[in-house]
Amino acid sequence: MKTIDWYLNNLKELSFDKISESRTRVDSLVKPPGSLGKLEDIAIRLAGITGNVYPSFEKRALIIMASDNGVVSEGVSSAPQSVTYAQTRNFLKGITGAAVLAKHFNADLKIVDIGVNGDFSDERIINRKIRKSTNNIAVSHAMTRDEAERAVLTGIELAIDTVEAGYSLLGTGEMGIGNTTTSSAVLCALTGIKPEKAVGKGAGLDNESYKRKIEIVADALKKYEPDSNDPLDVLSKVGGFDIGGIAGLFIGAAYMGVPIVVDGFISIVSALLAMKFNERVKDFMFLSHASYEQGYAEAARVFGDEPPLLLNMRLGEGSGCPIMFSLIDASCDIVKNMGTFDDGGIDDSYLEEAQTEGFFDI
Amino acid sequence: MKTIDWYLNNLKELSFDKISESRTRVDSLVKPPGSLGKLEDIAIRLAGITGNVYPSFEKRALIIMASDNGVVSEGVSSAPQSVTYAQTRNFLKGITGAAVLAKHFNADLKIVDIGVNGDFSDERIINRKIRKSTNNIAVSHAMTRDEAERAVLTGIELAIDTVEAGYSLLGTGEMGIGNTTTSSAVLCALTGIKPEKAVGKGAGLDNESYKRKIEIVADALKKYEPDSNDPLDVLSKVGGFDIGGIAGLFIGAAYMGVPIVVDGFISIVSALLAMKFNERVKDFMFLSHASYEQGYAEAARVFGDEPPLLLNMRLGEGSGCPIMFSLIDASCDIVKNMGTFDDGGIDDSYLEEAQTEGFFDI
Repeated sequence: MKTIDWYLNNLKELSFDKISESRTRVDSLVKPPGSLGKLEDIAIRLAGITGNVYPSFEKRALIIMASDNGVVSEGVSSAPQSVTYAQTRNFLKGITGAAVLAKHFNADLKIVDIGVNGDFSDERIINRKIRKSTNNIAVSHAMTRDEAERAVLTGIELAIDTVEAGYSLLGTGEMGIGNTTTSSAVLCALTGIKPEKAVGKGAGLDNESYKRKIEIVADALKKYEPDSNDPLDVLSKVGGFDIGGIAGLFIGAAYMGVPIVVDGFISIVSALLAMKFNERVKDFMFLSHASYEQGYAEAARVFGDEPPLLLNMRLGEGSGCPIMFSLIDASCDIVKNMGTFDDGGIDDSYLEEAQTEGFFDI
Repeated sequence: MKTIDWYLNNLKELSFDKISESRTRVDSLVKPPGSLGKLEDIAIRLAGITGNVYPSFEKRALIIMASDNGVVSEGVSSAPQSVTYAQTRNFLKGITGAAVLAKHFNADLKIVDIGVNGDFSDERIINRKIRKSTNNIAVSHAMTRDEAERAVLTGIELAIDTVEAGYSLLGTGEMGIGNTTTSSAVLCALTGIKPEKAVGKGAGLDNESYKRKIEIVADALKKYEPDSNDPLDVLSKVGGFDIGGIAGLFIGAAYMGVPIVVDGFISIVSALLAMKFNERVKDFMFLSHASYEQGYAEAARVFGDEPPLLLNMRLGEGSGCPIMFSLIDASCDIVKNMGTFDDGGIDDSYLEEAQTEGFFDI
């Protein structure tokens, strides 16, 4: 069996030739240079990832890691733990937010049980259970180091399986009551951000409950002293199986050389965890939406990019990914189907002049 | 012939019953209340606009107002005026950014010549020319008050024609070299925002050219003293035929009771102009993307809403609207196809408890 390190040592490289070729194509299109903003950036990076200036993504998968978190016994979530189990089944019924959005934007769901506190009989739920629920981080480490490693490897292997099954674009989602608490703890442990900034108020958290949630995170960090340079240490002490699994998806996508979309708060924290293993996995990631959860903005600052969607969503589940798939499709279509200045009967020499003279107003 | 005032006195009313019905439905869906953010807000308002909790928009049109601006003779634009004419034709070839995005997101283009400095032989370009190009605002009013009125009426009538032809969702676009200058002037005249804040640097405007553009706007405002409470006065003195036409589209959509999408800087300034005629037209408007043009942020602040797309685009043409059509479709799909807590086998009584206890973490 291959180790995480083996995969990290075998990540795909971006094709800088194709990036350059794509940029030349994009700049030849009949528009002011740069005027399609992030759609241009997306298209150019996709060329580097796929080695194709005109990529398209027929089969795309939203991979949802479902898992329970021991910390819910501290009352950090008003939703009962059983909601994780119920919602995991509801993905199959197609009635959750992410399921409806995935279908709308032509993506398939892959539902993974990586640690739900219950057993599923439906074989469409991929069984990769590490065990039932992590431990309560208020009283012990969330999991062993070995379990943390297995969670990440599980994600890597699932990404590989999915790409080998013909999918060329991946999205990351989760379902797990209590996972904003564990994600906040991981974010703080990785970055040194204070719990007051990382922990969100969720929907209508009152000040007392909010303080309690912050305290639990702060206490766990103080007690276990996770090593910010050792992602498995962080994951095992204050993380969750879902976070480890998603981090693995990012590494697996980078190993296979396919683009992968980051969803909301839990997903971007998992992205930062993956980047702690190896910064280069970021080359394959695309942010989708700015989660309304407070910690997202902090995480995006550390990540160093700004997402293209500002929807005030805080549902999780991977709900932002299918929407981003649609923007990715649009960016590819632009590169392929817009005309050039030649096609458009416009002498573009004024562009050079504009760049020389330094003004442009179209 | 009906006057602008006649239309303004006959705007559709939102159905508050349907808004309430939609909100009840949205809150019954299997997710934390409010967690789909703007997608929920969009769906609920669409119910109020259409009188239908489950609307769908089969035929959607992107209406592009093409027009020239006399102020280009001041050198505020490095692109020659002829680009307006060439690009207007290029929409028909399907090779412009907005044309590709419209096709990608299943919208039809309606190209309107409301003042291009040239004649078109292709009948697919709708001829509503007020005249060839406005005047240079550096030396005189852009147009007469009568022409301003005709530009707005032209937009109203086009919106009506389009809806009567079966379109139920509209988008607003423009093509006109020099129209960020006129839009900046209109924004300042309507709101009192200083030209330094409203005038954008475009793509790489150097400081000297930028100052010149600001001066032209500032001088015109000082010389003509447009009356901020009289939108026709503002439009005629410092506007453009495109701006007047788009403002008319917004009024026409509100008269017909159909949703209409705001594109970038020129479009949002036209929206503010339409709102100066009657604030209620805003009920039918949906912002799309935050243009990279500096004045957009100022205009959005006055408008009082935040767009859902942050793409750093500054192409204009209506390029943001088709993408927003897609978000509108997704929001409708959610309301229609997500399950309720009942469907999902989840006892939602914890939600009330959560709201009472004031914490929620899912």
